Parts: sequence; C-alpha cells; structure tokens
Amino acid sequence: MATRIGRYTLRLDTSPSVECYAAIGAKKEAEGPLAACFDQLMEDSTLGEQTWEKAESRLQKEIVALALNKGGLSPEEIDCIFAGDLLNQCTSSSYGLRSFGLPLIGVYGACSTMAESLGLAGLFVEGGFARRAMAVTSSHFCSAEKQFRFPLEYGGQRPPTSQWTVTGAGAAVAGPSGGPPYLRAVTFGRVQDMGIKDANNMGAAMAPAAADTLLRYFDDTRTAPEDYDMIFTGDLGQIGSDLLLQLTAPRGIDLAGKHTDCGLLIYDRKKQTEVGAGGSGCGCAATVLCGYLLDQLREGRFQEILFMATGALMSPTIVQQGESIPGVAHLLHLSANPWPKEVVS
Amino acid sequence: MATRIGRYTLRLDTSPSVECYAAIGAKKEAEGPLAACFDQLMEDSTLGEQTWEKAESRLQKEIVALALNKGGLSPEEIDCIFAGDLLNQCTSSSYGLRSFGLPLIGVYGACSTMAESLGLAGLFVEGGFARRAMAVTSSHFCSAEKQFRFPLEYGGQRPPTSQWTVTGAGAAVAGPSGGPPYLRAVTFGRVQDMGIKDANNMGAAMAPAAADTLLRYFDDTRTAPEDYDMIFTGDLGQIGSDLLLQLTAPRGIDLAGKHTDCGLLIYDRKKQTEVGAGGSGCGCAATVLCGYLLDQLREGRFQEILFMATGALMSPTIVQQGESIPGVAHLLHLSANPWPKEVVS
Repeated sequence: MATRIGRYTLRLDTSPSVECYAAIGAKKEAEGPLAACFDQLMEDSTLGEQTWEKAESRLQKEIVALALNKGGLSPEEIDCIFAGDLLNQCTSSSYGLRSFGLPLIGVYGACSTMAESLGLAGLFVEGGFARRAMAVTSSHFCSAEKQFRFPLEYGGQRPPTSQWTVTGAGAAVAGPSGGPPYLRAVTFGRVQDMGIKDANNMGAAMAPAAADTLLRYFDDTRTAPEDYDMIFTGDLGQIGSDLLLQLTAPRGIDLAGKHTDCGLLIYDRKKQTEVGAGGSGCGCAATVLCGYLLDQLREGRFQEILFMATGALMSPTIVQQGESIPGVAHLLHLSANPWPKEVVS
Repeated sequence: MATRIGRYTLRLDTSPSVECYAAIGAKKEAEGPLAACFDQLMEDSTLGEQTWEKAESRLQKEIVALALNKGGLSPEEIDCIFAGDLLNQCTSSSYGLRSFGLPLIGVYGACSTMAESLGLAGLFVEGGFARRAMAVTSSHFCSAEKQFRFPLEYGGQRPPTSQWTVTGAGAAVAGPSGGPPYLRAVTFGRVQDMGIKDANNMGAAMAPAAADTLLRYFDDTRTAPEDYDMIFTGDLGQIGSDLLLQLTAPRGIDLAGKHTDCGLLIYDRKKQTEVGAGGSGCGCAATVLCGYLLDQLREGRFQEILFMATGALMSPTIVQQGESIPGVAHLLHLSANPWPKEVVS
C-alpha cells in the first residue's frame, strides 16, 4: 500500500525492485558515449522491416524479449505490460507487443512514457495488482522525423534548438525480488503550457513541466537536490536543461552540479554536431535509464537518484493550427536500497 | 488491496464508488434513443472552436467541469486524471485538460479507453494511491473522419460495415464515498489480431479481443452470463456483436439475451441509417456508461453488469502499409452493491 506524501507524491512502501531491464539502440547511439551500456546496437535501423513504423514496432518486440531473457523470465511470469510511444495511435506498442499474449495497458505521455509506465508498473506491484509488471517504450529517428517534421528525403534543415530522436527502446520489469534497484516514490506530473509554439524547441516547451514536477516533489518530501546523487531529466537537451535551472533557482532550488539530462548523456554533441541540442524521443530516457542508470544503482555507484522523463504533448496537426505546446513530466525516485523500516512502518 | 482472481482478473476488495459522472453528446446523439440520458447535448458541434481538434479538446474540458459540478467536487479534491482519446498524440486530452492543474496520466486504448481509464482510476483508489481519481475520454465524428478516413468535404461513401464515431465525452470519478455504483473487478485485455485488414470493419477487428477478455473473466471468476443483468460491449456495432456471440458460443458461453453493445444503444439504426453498423469512438462507450449505465446501477434498475470497452489499435499509416488491425478489450464489473463482507474478508 503506497503512502501519499504531501499532495502529489506516492511513496512505495514495499520498495518494489526493478528486477530486470534492457536497452537497444542503433548506429547513432553506437557512436555516442553510452554505447557500451546498450544490450544491443542495431547496425541496420530498418531491423529488416519494410517501413519505419514496422521497424519501431520490431524494436519493442525485441526489447521485451531481451529484458525477459536477461531476467530469466517467461512472458507467463509477467502480469501486464504498460507501453506507449510517439507514433500516431501508439502503434509501435500495440503491433510490437501483440505476440506476447499479455494484458496491454496502453499509456501516452510522449517522451515521459518511460517514467509514467515504470511508475504505474511499480504501483501495480505495490498494490498487489501484479506480481510483476513491465514498462516499455521506444522511438525511432526515421518514423519520428517523418511524422513530426519532414520526410527524410526532403533533407529539411534543422535549427540548433532541435533535438535528435533516439532510435532505441527500453524495457524494465517491476517485481518483488528484493534486490536493487528499488522504486521508492512516484510523482505524476501536471500539464504545463508556457506558450512555446516552436516545434523545433521541445526542450523549452518541456522545461516548465520538469520544474513544476520537481518543485512539487521537493515540497512533498521535504528533500532537496543534495539528498540525491543526481537528478536526471528525460530529454530536455541543452536548452531545456538551462531553462530548468533558471526556473527552479528563484524557488531556492540550486540544481547546479546535481542535474543532467539523458538527452545530453546519450550523444557527444561536440563530435555528433547533427544532434543539435541533444537526444530526444521516448527512447532517449528509456535507453539511458535501462542501459545506464539502473545498472549504476544495482552496482551501488549511485545510491539515490531522481529520474524525471519529460513529454511534449503536441501533435503536428494542432501546432499547425497555432496552438502552443504543453509539457508534462513524471518523476521516479530510484534507490540502491529499499526504504528503511523506520520510514515505512 | 486488490485480490488477483485467476490469472487476469483483479477484484477490488474495497468496492470503490463511482462517485460522480457526466456525459455530453451532440446533434446525432440528440436524435438517438438515449438522448434523455445526456447531461448536455451540443447544438453546435464546433463548440465555438475553429477546428475539429480544438472542438474535441473542448469536449474534454466541458465534461470534466460538468462531472465535478454534478459531484459537488472542486479540482483540488481529485488526485489525478486518467485520460486518452483517438487523436494523434492524444491531443484532446492534453489540451482539453491542461487548465485543471491536475496530474495527468495519459492512457491509450483506442475505443477501450473508458474501461481502461476507469479501471485504473478504481485501482488507484483501491490501492490508496488516490483518494479520488478521474477517468475521461472523448471522440468527435469530424476529427475522427478527417484523421482515420476522409475529409468530410470529400463526401466519401461509407460501406454498411462502417460505424459512426460518436461526438461526445464521458467522465467518471472513482472515490471512497460508499454509495452505488461500485467498481468490483477489472480485467485488462490482451491484444488479439485475427488478420482483419478492413479499416471500415472495426467491429470484426475488435470482436476477438472482446471474446478473449470475456472468456478469461468468466474463467477467472467462475461466473457465467446468467450471473449478470447484462453485458455491455463498447462499440462492436452489429457485425462485431454477431461475431462475439459466434466466438463465445463454441466455448459454452451463451450470450443471447444477455449482451448488447453501446454502439447499438446510442443510435436508432432504423431511423439513423447513416450510422451503418452502429456507433463507435472512445465517446461511444464513455457516454453510454456515464449517461445511462451508471445511473441504472445507482437507481438499482441493474444490480450487476459487465462493461467491456473495445479498441481497434490501428493507425491509418500502418493499415496503408498492409498490416492487419489488432484489437483490445478491457472489462469492468460494476454493481449496485459493494462486495459482501464474506467474499472479501
């Protein structure tokens, strides 16, 4: 039974484990600084499929199989999957996961999906609703460019504020195993819209949501940045990260040295200049979490982290109609240790 | 704390109440047999907005305000909203709900969204994750036609298997009030794909998912159709409903006289011949549930019902690529009475 802390934060008193997890990337990710953290790096970003949409579905299928395999689990040991993605009607998830025969609880949080889905999976374990629940998401540079911006063949120029959609997928299983890493708390985000209308500047559109969720989490838990080894946002990139610091500083929260962004970790922006302000897409936060962060916790190199994936909740249609871009951010507190007994008893 | 019954079904031992709910429709719904059940019927299906997408967002904003108002609740009394819709990137939900300042947990289940979101809301109450959680969804004939089929101006012909997307929205609040109706059990669906490729025959694409979820629920709970006053599917329409009976009969489940479909209830197919095989869209199951079914339970005219909304998890893009259409169905057991103490103790 979770305990509500303050107005917005749920403390998972049983500290569900993230039992197993995996990350897949492709060529661009193989050239980045986290290359060694991926379980698999696809040479061929079509994955042998005829369309980019089918290639992305295939990423989800592969990542679920990989994560189960790493955990020595069969699909029958999973009670439900929370999954979503950026494609229209979330088809990567529905098509990619249809062969597993598991209850599918579809979610949509744009690039915040990894935090949303793993938060829900953890709560399902906490509440006894599932013995094990899985969280999955993906993105693909080519399906995203085609859908949100221009067909690749058009060769559209990208402004420096733009971000590079990660071709990759991450999956994680929440369960009762009792080993690290542990999921300690979840804060679901409120939609924030500061009027940004530039679909090539998602970092700016999402930063207010990241600030809102983080401030509410600190308020609720009476903690501060110094209580954590590090705070990882999902895909704010350089511009959104700078804005996050500017938005939180006036509230007395100094994130300097305590914050970085998955979109800044996954690529080397000096060498890979084409990535612009950093990585993005559901696969960005998902692969950095499932490829890098969870291992750091498991191996004790981090003790306490906050993982906050951010999503820009727009569609090309509605932005073309002159609307601004709302953002949302969901936060997870992950730890190398379960809650101490004196806290949760 | 929910109890897992069998492999797939969650029994909500605290029997959360559906405390308040509301339904909005438009002109076509005003001409149908359930007209009197709607809380509001919009004369102008633009809702004063410049685009169909914005009109549908407006539907979500209005329905949340209406449901809260009916329940005498302020937004501050709601801990989170589960919402989703059919539009690309679920923009009706994100844009429609951004002004409420509440945590938004985006879901995607196509037309199964009302059952998915209310199931999750009920589980959040059951698990102590929320004191009150809201479930919301919508659809709009004009935004759906434009996105999934043809622009209205094109005047495309509709085959008789096609269904008519409901212009409407429903919202319901799960909470602890202790009055009827009660949410007793949830079964989340597995994706089923029998190879249907006709995007004008959604009923056929979704019927296998409905059959799968229903059979698993009966297996898990050791109940049968005769234990319920009625079983309501979401939007199978006539063709999908016929198929559901054909798919369940060989398994010894006789639904004759015990099953109807929200898509058959909402319109008068004899007079409103343009609706084809019946109503559809997230708003179909949502308005029939929130406008009609929940009142029947509250007033004791039904004692036990199953509400199973069905979704076709396709996108136009992936169907044009030659893919078949997977379906999913999520089931809720709703009752005029809470679980008897001897069952849950």
